[in-house]
Amino acid sequence: MAALDDVLNRVDGQLDASVERLFAFLRIPSISTDPAFAAQCRLAAESAAATLGELGLSASVRETAGHPAVIGRTDTGAARRVLFYGHYDVQPVDPLDLWETPPFEPVLATDASGRARIVGRGACDDKGQVFTFLEALRAHRDVAGRLPVDVTVLLEGEEECGSPSLPAFLAAHAGELAADVALVCDTGMWDRDTPAITTALRGIVHCELTVSGADRDLHSGLFGGAARNPTHVLAGIIADLHDAAGRVTIPGFYDAVREPPEAVRRQWAGLGFTAESFLGPVGLAISAGEADRMLIEQIQSRPTAEVNGMYGGYTGQGSKTIIPASATAKISFRLVADQDPAAIKSAFADFVAARVPADCKVQLSFGEGSRAVLVPPESPDLAKAAGALEAEWGRAPVEIGSGGSIPIVGQFKAVLGMDTLLIGFGLDDDRVHSPNEKYDMASFRKGTRSWVRILDALA
Amino acid sequence: MAALDDVLNRVDGQLDASVERLFAFLRIPSISTDPAFAAQCRLAAESAAATLGELGLSASVRETAGHPAVIGRTDTGAARRVLFYGHYDVQPVDPLDLWETPPFEPVLATDASGRARIVGRGACDDKGQVFTFLEALRAHRDVAGRLPVDVTVLLEGEEECGSPSLPAFLAAHAGELAADVALVCDTGMWDRDTPAITTALRGIVHCELTVSGADRDLHSGLFGGAARNPTHVLAGIIADLHDAAGRVTIPGFYDAVREPPEAVRRQWAGLGFTAESFLGPVGLAISAGEADRMLIEQIQSRPTAEVNGMYGGYTGQGSKTIIPASATAKISFRLVADQDPAAIKSAFADFVAARVPADCKVQLSFGEGSRAVLVPPESPDLAKAAGALEAEWGRAPVEIGSGGSIPIVGQFKAVLGMDTLLIGFGLDDDRVHSPNEKYDMASFRKGTRSWVRILDALA
Repeated sequence: MAALDDVLNRVDGQLDASVERLFAFLRIPSISTDPAFAAQCRLAAESAAATLGELGLSASVRETAGHPAVIGRTDTGAARRVLFYGHYDVQPVDPLDLWETPPFEPVLATDASGRARIVGRGACDDKGQVFTFLEALRAHRDVAGRLPVDVTVLLEGEEECGSPSLPAFLAAHAGELAADVALVCDTGMWDRDTPAITTALRGIVHCELTVSGADRDLHSGLFGGAARNPTHVLAGIIADLHDAAGRVTIPGFYDAVREPPEAVRRQWAGLGFTAESFLGPVGLAISAGEADRMLIEQIQSRPTAEVNGMYGGYTGQGSKTIIPASATAKISFRLVADQDPAAIKSAFADFVAARVPADCKVQLSFGEGSRAVLVPPESPDLAKAAGALEAEWGRAPVEIGSGGSIPIVGQFKAVLGMDTLLIGFGLDDDRVHSPNEKYDMASFRKGTRSWVRILDALA
Repeated sequence: MAALDDVLNRVDGQLDASVERLFAFLRIPSISTDPAFAAQCRLAAESAAATLGELGLSASVRETAGHPAVIGRTDTGAARRVLFYGHYDVQPVDPLDLWETPPFEPVLATDASGRARIVGRGACDDKGQVFTFLEALRAHRDVAGRLPVDVTVLLEGEEECGSPSLPAFLAAHAGELAADVALVCDTGMWDRDTPAITTALRGIVHCELTVSGADRDLHSGLFGGAARNPTHVLAGIIADLHDAAGRVTIPGFYDAVREPPEAVRRQWAGLGFTAESFLGPVGLAISAGEADRMLIEQIQSRPTAEVNGMYGGYTGQGSKTIIPASATAKISFRLVADQDPAAIKSAFADFVAARVPADCKVQLSFGEGSRAVLVPPESPDLAKAAGALEAEWGRAPVEIGSGGSIPIVGQFKAVLGMDTLLIGFGLDDDRVHSPNEKYDMASFRKGTRSWVRILDALA
């Protein structure tokens, strides 16, 4: 263990330099969903490839149909190879006026409890988390001159907009990306003191729905009371999505849903996970989910239907007395095992069609979608990683399900035949996707140390 | 009638000169909503005051808190006085590229049926309509040296941006503006061959409703299924506004609604007003209104609740997996007699409050609002004007309600104690507020002749 301690000490000794390197990466506004930032996405890819090169990986930017990906790898003939996946793209920053510091000018701040934090877009999701892994590689290499295992790093630039190019990219580079196990650092801790390994992820289906009525905006005085208002039609569809008990009403929506094993449900029931503790910190008090399900079920083992955005008609200052010509909603469904994205798309299309008057038009477009993923609890690598995390944090990690969706995990299994260990150091209050995103310095430091230990354990 | 025929002949004889005078007025780009055109608005006011002076009125430009108004009057000691109201301001012209001729370079054109038309911004609304009245004054004066009644003309310059300065201006000049009856030329014909007197206008209440949930946008994967989504809450409120039969469900909403007299309903039933004829031209086919009401009732004698705009969450390109922190709708209610704006506001506030979960917040703000206006069917001036219109057009005018709202009419009643006769010569295809606005030469000529007869009849 002497060598391992040296590597861990190296992490602590170069922490300031590690943060500086992360800051340089955070300064690149790599917002993948907005085409205006395409050049910045490429810049982030080039920066990541350069960092991998510094770490001794043979690395390059690779073209995709969308934003480029980065692949780096060592080929030392080690007994085992891990594939690390992360993403260099970040969420949009609006509403910008709610940021206390500019989103792409990362800063170190201290919270009321004296805890240091890194603040900026991507500080956690996923640039900060990716850097815990890269800095762990750096520490191993600095101390030992080599890594305990061979490593392939895959960074994509479209995770925040649904990874549209990734399936084809994975298939085209399957040989180059093959490994014994995949590691992903894009998830969270159980709480500030307790690490977690995420062994279940919800899948996702994105869609955009536009209802159109008249061929122009109409004067609401002259036509009001007779002309169909597409905002009313869209509101009706959205309102119908859930019944009064919080259940999604799309016919067949729950048909393929698998219930968690009774043992898991019992473990969950014992966690004391309440609306006060989970929703209180974001200003809510009452669960809006299925009334007959525990809160933890609602966010982990149950599927959802959520409007992510909607608009129609006049949205500027003051009033404009029109009946809008159209109204649009962006809706996403979170899926659990064994829901099939294609079946959900079809069921929702039927649901919409049944609610649109004959003289209105509907445009409904879907993203590709992904199934939910479950990691087998008997995996030996899962046990090794759990041991490494316990050594770092002094507590055994909790195996949790995540309500989020990381479609690539299903593709690693389907295309590359690998299981994935989802280990991340985010906290519930990190404001991921929101203004003032942050990553605790403790997450960054002990996350890096955790990867040092996990790489050692997996060797 | 010899003298009246002389005046009518004078209208016809000087028609070309009348059109030239209107063209000069149309060339002034008096767009009131855009501060860049403030000087042009003043120029239009000065031009109108000069025209009134030519006609023998004592006229001047009057300051308001916004664009100036114009008042002109004769004081010959005639037995009766009419107040004529119109506006010199016009709508913006965007999208400019859809105009076939420059909006402020009026032209005479001929349509496929050989009908002459005046084309340009304001050709109908309201400069062309105002000029029918002014040219009628001119013809009377040219032939008889005097007008049959004393006349006060009030032209405002803020009608297209909500007349914000007018209520205070009316109150401040109440004595100067007092008259026996008000005349407004800002409405339309029933059809090309049938004149109309608008005897009912709907009132209006504007509001803006924001529902807020969590204190930030939430990750829809991590919180989806448990956290309240304000877009769902808002959609529920909007969807609940109408029942399946198109009726507004707000308790008490219809309590004060007055039914039209049976004779009026019978007249309406005979008009052959259909969804195909009314909604077909804008691309719709099915009425969305109250199923047990005639279409003409839906837009004239029934109140409405319409969303004019709504937004919440992510509305940019692509997708963003959030549960929005808030959602907003701009909603307006069109009121009919005897609905009270204050009662409608209160009923809607209760309706909203009943549909918002305890841990969500509501912001609900209302504009001042205006009551509906009805001209008493027994008004002698109404009968006189109707007779004059029948003499000109060879058909009795239809008494119609307008779904729109002209708040000044309520103010004439409330502040000045006058009823208003709304008589205009616009046609449904005049493209008011749209590119290529036009006014038929027949509307201009016979409109002018109509005012000649009405002034004579009111004497």
